[in-house]
Amino acid sequence: MEALSILEIERILEQLDGWEYIDGAIETSFQFENFKEAFTIMTRIAFECEAQGHHPDWSNVYNSLHIRLNTHDVEGVTEKDFRLARAIESIVDSE
Amino acid sequence: MEALSILEIERILEQLDGWEYIDGAIETSFQFENFKEAFTIMTRIAFECEAQGHHPDWSNVYNSLHIRLNTHDVEGVTEKDFRLARAIESIVDSE
Repeated sequence: MEALSILEIERILEQLDGWEYIDGAIETSFQFENFKEAFTIMTRIAFECEAQGHHPDWSNVYNSLHIRLNTHDVEGVTEKDFRLARAIESIVDSE
Repeated sequence: MEALSILEIERILEQLDGWEYIDGAIETSFQFENFKEAFTIMTRIAFECEAQGHHPDWSNVYNSLHIRLNTHDVEGVTEKDFRLARAIESIVDSE
């Protein structure tokens, strides 16, 4: 899988809500009601990551979740990152 | 609950394995076999955090987990942080 160009990344990002390209990865943040809600969503995302065989660089502080996606093998952003980003959006939106 | 002095923090840290005082918090990192093992441990820690009503600033990338604990109310490290740190050690050691 090849790294997408910044032009391609920017074009695909237009279809996603709240993600941006920062320093070689696509990133977003979410705020939930509390820690329990945040970790519940993280658990659903974790199962999706495992199913896709693709994993985030993510951090959590109480009710906030920050997610950074890139593809280490190609040191850039690929369609794998967007596939996971779309799944994450779908999980968060379904709450 | 009062913030501990750096002297007190350093003394208590001697009883813990692999934690250090960095910039107003106590921190540690763990490496697990893979993402699933890391997230399994995170889930057990999450339940403990919720039970203690005290939550970490933590990040995960694949099999690695970084944890930073401090007490926001007093902008420092308190006994609450060490209580959670000991519980985290116990969870990780039980694997």
